[in-house]
Amino acid sequence: MVNSVLVINGPNLNLLGTREPEIYGATTLSDIEAITRTHAEALKLDVSFYQSNVEGELVDAIQGAKGTYDGIILNAAAYTHTSIALMDAIKATGVPTIEVHLSNVFAREPFRHHSYISPAAEGVICGFGAQGYILALDALAEIMKK
Amino acid sequence: MVNSVLVINGPNLNLLGTREPEIYGATTLSDIEAITRTHAEALKLDVSFYQSNVEGELVDAIQGAKGTYDGIILNAAAYTHTSIALMDAIKATGVPTIEVHLSNVFAREPFRHHSYISPAAEGVICGFGAQGYILALDALAEIMKK
Amino acid sequence: MVNSVLVINGPNLNLLGTREPEIYGATTLSDIEAITRTHAEALKLDVSFYQSNVEGELVDAIQGAKGTYDGIILNAAAYTHTSIALMDAIKATGVPTIEVHLSNVFAREPFRHHSYISPAAEGVICGFGAQGYILALDALAEIMKK
Amino acid sequence: MVNSVLVINGPNLNLLGTREPEIYGATTLSDIEAITRTHAEALKLDVSFYQSNVEGELVDAIQGAKGTYDGIILNAAAYTHTSIALMDAIKATGVPTIEVHLSNVFAREPFRHHSYISPAAEGVICGFGAQGYILALDALAEIMKK
Amino acid sequence: MVNSVLVINGPNLNLLGTREPEIYGATTLSDIEAITRTHAEALKLDVSFYQSNVEGELVDAIQGAKGTYDGIILNAAAYTHTSIALMDAIKATGVPTIEVHLSNVFAREPFRHHSYISPAAEGVICGFGAQGYILALDALAEIMKK
Amino acid sequence: MVNSVLVINGPNLNLLGTREPEIYGATTLSDIEAITRTHAEALKLDVSFYQSNVEGELVDAIQGAKGTYDGIILNAAAYTHTSIALMDAIKATGVPTIEVHLSNVFAREPFRHHSYISPAAEGVICGFGAQGYILALDALAEIMKK
Amino acid sequence: MVNSVLVINGPNLNLLGTREPEIYGATTLSDIEAITRTHAEALKLDVSFYQSNVEGELVDAIQGAKGTYDGIILNAAAYTHTSIALMDAIKATGVPTIEVHLSNVFAREPFRHHSYISPAAEGVICGFGAQGYILALDALAEIMKK
Amino acid sequence: MVNSVLVINGPNLNLLGTREPEIYGATTLSDIEAITRTHAEALKLDVSFYQSNVEGELVDAIQGAKGTYDGIILNAAAYTHTSIALMDAIKATGVPTIEVHLSNVFAREPFRHHSYISPAAEGVICGFGAQGYILALDALAEIMKK
Amino acid sequence: MVNSVLVINGPNLNLLGTREPEIYGATTLSDIEAITRTHAEALKLDVSFYQSNVEGELVDAIQGAKGTYDGIILNAAAYTHTSIALMDAIKATGVPTIEVHLSNVFAREPFRHHSYISPAAEGVICGFGAQGYILALDALAEIMKK
Amino acid sequence: MVNSVLVINGPNLNLLGTREPEIYGATTLSDIEAITRTHAEALKLDVSFYQSNVEGELVDAIQGAKGTYDGIILNAAAYTHTSIALMDAIKATGVPTIEVHLSNVFAREPFRHHSYISPAAEGVICGFGAQGYILALDALAEIMKK
Amino acid sequence: MVNSVLVINGPNLNLLGTREPEIYGATTLSDIEAITRTHAEALKLDVSFYQSNVEGELVDAIQGAKGTYDGIILNAAAYTHTSIALMDAIKATGVPTIEVHLSNVFAREPFRHHSYISPAAEGVICGFGAQGYILALDALAEIMKK
Amino acid sequence: MVNSVLVINGPNLNLLGTREPEIYGATTLSDIEAITRTHAEALKLDVSFYQSNVEGELVDAIQGAKGTYDGIILNAAAYTHTSIALMDAIKATGVPTIEVHLSNVFAREPFRHHSYISPAAEGVICGFGAQGYILALDALAEIMKK
Repeated sequence: MVNSVLVINGPNLNLLGTREPEIYGATTLSDIEAITRTHAEALKLDVSFYQSNVEGELVDAIQGAKGTYDGIILNAAAYTHTSIALMDAIKATGVPTIEVHLSNVFAREPFRHHSYISPAAEGVICGFGAQGYILALDALAEIMKK
Repeated sequence: MVNSVLVINGPNLNLLGTREPEIYGATTLSDIEAITRTHAEALKLDVSFYQSNVEGELVDAIQGAKGTYDGIILNAAAYTHTSIALMDAIKATGVPTIEVHLSNVFAREPFRHHSYISPAAEGVICGFGAQGYILALDALAEIMKK
Repeated sequence: MVNSVLVINGPNLNLLGTREPEIYGATTLSDIEAITRTHAEALKLDVSFYQSNVEGELVDAIQGAKGTYDGIILNAAAYTHTSIALMDAIKATGVPTIEVHLSNVFAREPFRHHSYISPAAEGVICGFGAQGYILALDALAEIMKK
Repeated sequence: MVNSVLVINGPNLNLLGTREPEIYGATTLSDIEAITRTHAEALKLDVSFYQSNVEGELVDAIQGAKGTYDGIILNAAAYTHTSIALMDAIKATGVPTIEVHLSNVFAREPFRHHSYISPAAEGVICGFGAQGYILALDALAEIMKK
Repeated sequence: MVNSVLVINGPNLNLLGTREPEIYGATTLSDIEAITRTHAEALKLDVSFYQSNVEGELVDAIQGAKGTYDGIILNAAAYTHTSIALMDAIKATGVPTIEVHLSNVFAREPFRHHSYISPAAEGVICGFGAQGYILALDALAEIMKK
Repeated sequence: MVNSVLVINGPNLNLLGTREPEIYGATTLSDIEAITRTHAEALKLDVSFYQSNVEGELVDAIQGAKGTYDGIILNAAAYTHTSIALMDAIKATGVPTIEVHLSNVFAREPFRHHSYISPAAEGVICGFGAQGYILALDALAEIMKK
Repeated sequence: MVNSVLVINGPNLNLLGTREPEIYGATTLSDIEAITRTHAEALKLDVSFYQSNVEGELVDAIQGAKGTYDGIILNAAAYTHTSIALMDAIKATGVPTIEVHLSNVFAREPFRHHSYISPAAEGVICGFGAQGYILALDALAEIMKK
Repeated sequence: MVNSVLVINGPNLNLLGTREPEIYGATTLSDIEAITRTHAEALKLDVSFYQSNVEGELVDAIQGAKGTYDGIILNAAAYTHTSIALMDAIKATGVPTIEVHLSNVFAREPFRHHSYISPAAEGVICGFGAQGYILALDALAEIMKK
Repeated sequence: MVNSVLVINGPNLNLLGTREPEIYGATTLSDIEAITRTHAEALKLDVSFYQSNVEGELVDAIQGAKGTYDGIILNAAAYTHTSIALMDAIKATGVPTIEVHLSNVFAREPFRHHSYISPAAEGVICGFGAQGYILALDALAEIMKK
Repeated sequence: MVNSVLVINGPNLNLLGTREPEIYGATTLSDIEAITRTHAEALKLDVSFYQSNVEGELVDAIQGAKGTYDGIILNAAAYTHTSIALMDAIKATGVPTIEVHLSNVFAREPFRHHSYISPAAEGVICGFGAQGYILALDALAEIMKK
Repeated sequence: MVNSVLVINGPNLNLLGTREPEIYGATTLSDIEAITRTHAEALKLDVSFYQSNVEGELVDAIQGAKGTYDGIILNAAAYTHTSIALMDAIKATGVPTIEVHLSNVFAREPFRHHSYISPAAEGVICGFGAQGYILALDALAEIMKK
Repeated sequence: MVNSVLVINGPNLNLLGTREPEIYGATTLSDIEAITRTHAEALKLDVSFYQSNVEGELVDAIQGAKGTYDGIILNAAAYTHTSIALMDAIKATGVPTIEVHLSNVFAREPFRHHSYISPAAEGVICGFGAQGYILALDALAEIMKK
């Protein structure tokens, strides 16, 4: 049976490519989805994508993954640092989740150094741009083997 | 005239019964609604229920209670600790509100010890599981007598 | 067999009714005891009362509840915020304890927001004046059923 | 060509006039919109209005301003103090934004003294009630000249 | 009618004269009582003395002053820095209270710089040794005139 | 009768135009005074100017405004963040005061984010360069109407 | 030989009687000087007075006391909380200094709870209005006897 | 001449053996006294025991040791972390005192990591259960030799 | 030309497989080196390994990488949280460095949440056990392409 | 079979006897080793000694104790307060370890009050000079019996 | 052309030689000026001196150095730790400034460890008494060469 | 007799000239040694040099200076901010030590503002590049004269 993965992107990531390119690069969210889809095919994984700027809709998306997806890749962007609700959703749902950030958040403002997501996630990957999603897929594939 | 109460539940409470049962117990949100409805009838109170994972929709719900409900029972879950908007909504609306938590939040992680809701609420009841809603109804009934 | 409950009140609660009535109301400690006794009878619970201004005597009272009482309702007043000894007594004794406060402590000075009692208690009820003791009896009765 | 401005109001501002008038005054949001529209006409500026209680919808509104509006006047209310997502949206969109508050937030509770919006805004105007929007229009008009 | 004053001394002050004389001087508690009594007579004030090492007994003493004494001089010693119960007792009793310390507590360890008594007291006198009690009597006499 | 306004500028503002122009712009203090005077005339307000590098002389100037001026525009520069004396002077004098900053202080070093002036001021305007004084005049004119 | 005392008053105390009378009372600085002079005569002490709003002039005054005055009574007002220079001046000059405050600073805003003066002073007297200066004279007289 | 030692145990230690045995072990306070007495005899030391749950009575006990005992072994339990009065009593009495804890307090909750007793004690021994008292006797015997 | 990578492991990682396997798993450091070597061959990268328990020797190793290696994979273990010297070495050397942790450090003790390495690294990968080294190789390979 | 103990001393302890004798006494490290060896013989324990100024070599020594020694006595000196690596080594090795300090670290600078070693150690003994090692041997002997 | 240097000394430094000689030594400010003048001559530098106890006059002096002096040696004494205005003056004026302290401020009270001057200065020299001014002249001479 | 000085340089200073030249300049450690040697000869001082990246070896070097060198110039680089062991070594050895930094550490990241070395050093010189070593030699020469 084919394992499936839900990639969830949070607030302002829909602007990728136009938003502060010196921090986030010129790659658009569509580019990331394309790259990720290609790599998922190579790994024989089904992959779906969801983006929202609304914290509660991201909670809904995580809840909805239960029973449908075998893993989540979550880039919660700004909500990473303020959302206990997302942390609770990951714990409540129980689907293995990998936290991804495009930029190296630890080299930026102090308020981006703390994450409510991290303690509920399997692991964290940050600083590698679009490739971070590829690495997260690899990591999920390995976790699913176990 | 019959007094009416709006019971508002916040993020991830729709998962009750399946979510971390060692913390939240096996009771579902439907169970809680049924128990609460029965007790409300005994107290001759009308009772309605609302749940959302979206902070702003909870703000809408509190605002909408004005003129329609005589009291609110609010379990804001994760938003308890981060939402000034909910606190402002309670103050702006002026409907007596009781804060309820299923678990004893003070025996959990430190970030769950602070509540923006409490200073705007009539009082706080936490740690008694589903019975907390019953106790909150009793407390509201008493407040409405005054 | 009839279950029994010990209601313990801490420092300055003997002054209730005369003390800062704009915060604590006009009800005296005797009034509270009368109301509580009546409700206990309705619940078929034995109830006893103890008040002291001395932290160590409150520790003694909690210790003494072991083997004699099935539950404790504790309003530790000012010692709530400073007494690790009371917390240790509750843990050491193992009798289910409910923390009660007449006023909504979270709407008062910051040093009243932290409680050493809460993590050792079953749950917390605050802000409902004398009715808080009634609600605590209800909660204890429910806990004793289990 | 006529410059255009989007005025965005955040959570609970739809209740203006009824909400805690001792802090916010009796002016309604409609009153503010009318005053602002009149002043915009005097300045030969187009002006539109948006209000939402949902943080993510405010993010959407800021994003949508790009390419359509030449400036934003933002009263993010309670989200001012908790929303990194709004800050990121302002930075990502690049439309000059002025932060407005009706009350003098620095004379209120400490948690209203910090703003995530301010570092991303052109400037801040607070404490002048409805007139704050007039002043913000003047400020934007001046910025647009450059 | 003659006004009366209760002088309350807290923990370890019974050791005065033998305790760390380089900080507290050679004067004993009896010496202080004698000096204070003499000055009280000159001011035509009745004066009584109480000392205890038990926080709760000091609370009792303050409560007992109500209706019997027109003013309290309180040197709560170590409990100054840790006792919310004493603060509550002063507020609950409503008898004008002056806080006295023999040594200049602000020139000592940081944990002696904060006092729970001060906000509930009329005023504070510290650093003048036994004379501090004389000055406090003078201050009380002046307050009683009003 | 014509209302009058005193514009007070604090330390180092006499260097404007030469001082760190990348932060403060090329406009000199004389330029600001000229612009402000012109706008005051349009508003039919008398306006005077005072600048000093000495905190106590700024206190003197605020005190001197009482009975002579109907409003103060205060840019306390560095003293904004350290001077309780200026805050006390504003409160003691009771003349409506508007706090102005040329730069957006919230986008600069953290020690410039706190202001002792703000809680005593009517409102705050920052980040708009010389135009901030114009906006402050408008705000004062509105306040004087009431 | 007659001992002499210099009474130094800091910023905004020249406004006493008009400044926030609900905190500072209706007594003017002249009244305080008259009362103090009368009491000094009774104690056979010479007394002089100095007031300035400039921190450095207060430093000058303290320095100037050396060799001329046997004691200082210092009400540094707002500079109490921010001036290390005044603390250094007291230490450098070595003239016994008593810190006085009209109001009970510990019952006011938190930033008024810390004093740089206190560790360098003989003692502190606060909360007794104008009488505080009388008490300070008594305390100095006693110190001078030693 | 035989040296004598007073062993003082604080709040809740009377419950040893029944209290949370996974932390404190099954040994009762009587067991500890017996073991300690036996070891004291081997060291030719007189030993007495005192236990109280009242902070002030522990202060009394320490004060009473002066002139009667040559050393104190103090397990202040919960008061370790909150009692400045005990610290002052040790300093005021001057009898060499050794602080003992049954459990390794540094491996427990953060509020048990700070001790007001330690800076006034000769030394600290923690984590060795009942044997800690034996070690403390050995340490005191060594100190008494000097 | 073949790119080369230096894998540096810090203190106690030589004990992997025996050390707290519930946290770090049963894989030994040799296992990790074997897996990493195999994957490096697949990526056509040369790879070398170094381990030391001495902070300064890890500094030496990073310095030595300059001119010899095209990338570093660094698991600094406990020194991650305390070593500014390692951070300085990475910056001084300029070789692209990826920070790896076997466990999810953000789900462990708070003192493991801060890293001095992260701001100097390209990115961070944590929580994936031995696979983290594989992912880091992939990330480095991608970085080297640019 | 004879149990064996490794005594590890950290930085600057090689200077004992010459280093700040008012704090550490005149006893040299050789003296301590001699006293300890004698006591070990009385307890029928083998004992070895190791000292290093290099944090990583102390890590090596702790690791090397596994399988060879039945207990460790560790005086990590300055590294006590800064070394997570030593803490990890103790946990990774699993050999029972007792933390010893010659001086009463809690009566010294605040940065010496926190220990990374303590939570990983069996217990802590401090303030008894060279005798601390004797007490630690006794404690280890008791632990080894179990 | 001859370079010129302005030496600015802050509050209480006029008392040098009489002020707390155990900290500041017996050298007077005149002595320091003489030594500095002699060394300046050897370096072929013009040197002037200024001292004031008034923060704002020190700001004036720094501003006045622009265009007249090639370097400043600033011992701001107590204002070092509290004056943002001096920091701003240095930045606004742009004259190379060296911060000097007679005593080693880092070995004194914690509030003397922070300096607002340092980030705006070329460098800092502290702890060398009067010689610090000589070293600062040498440092300035070197900077002027570049 | 000729006095001798040991110059100790800490981690990463061996990379000087290549390491982040925008912060540390192009001068190499050899250059610094040459300049320092030349100046030492002019001062008739013997000078030796030591560099290590290992904290414990720097401790060894400081200890070894006792009896051989009359003064130490220490640039502990990154260990400045984290090493209590170096502070203890300086105190234990008693050789006068001057702390030097090439860059102005107070104008860099906050974690470089605190130094464990400073309170144990004679004084501090920072921000003057290689010349700092020259100034430190001058300062040591002056100290040795006394």
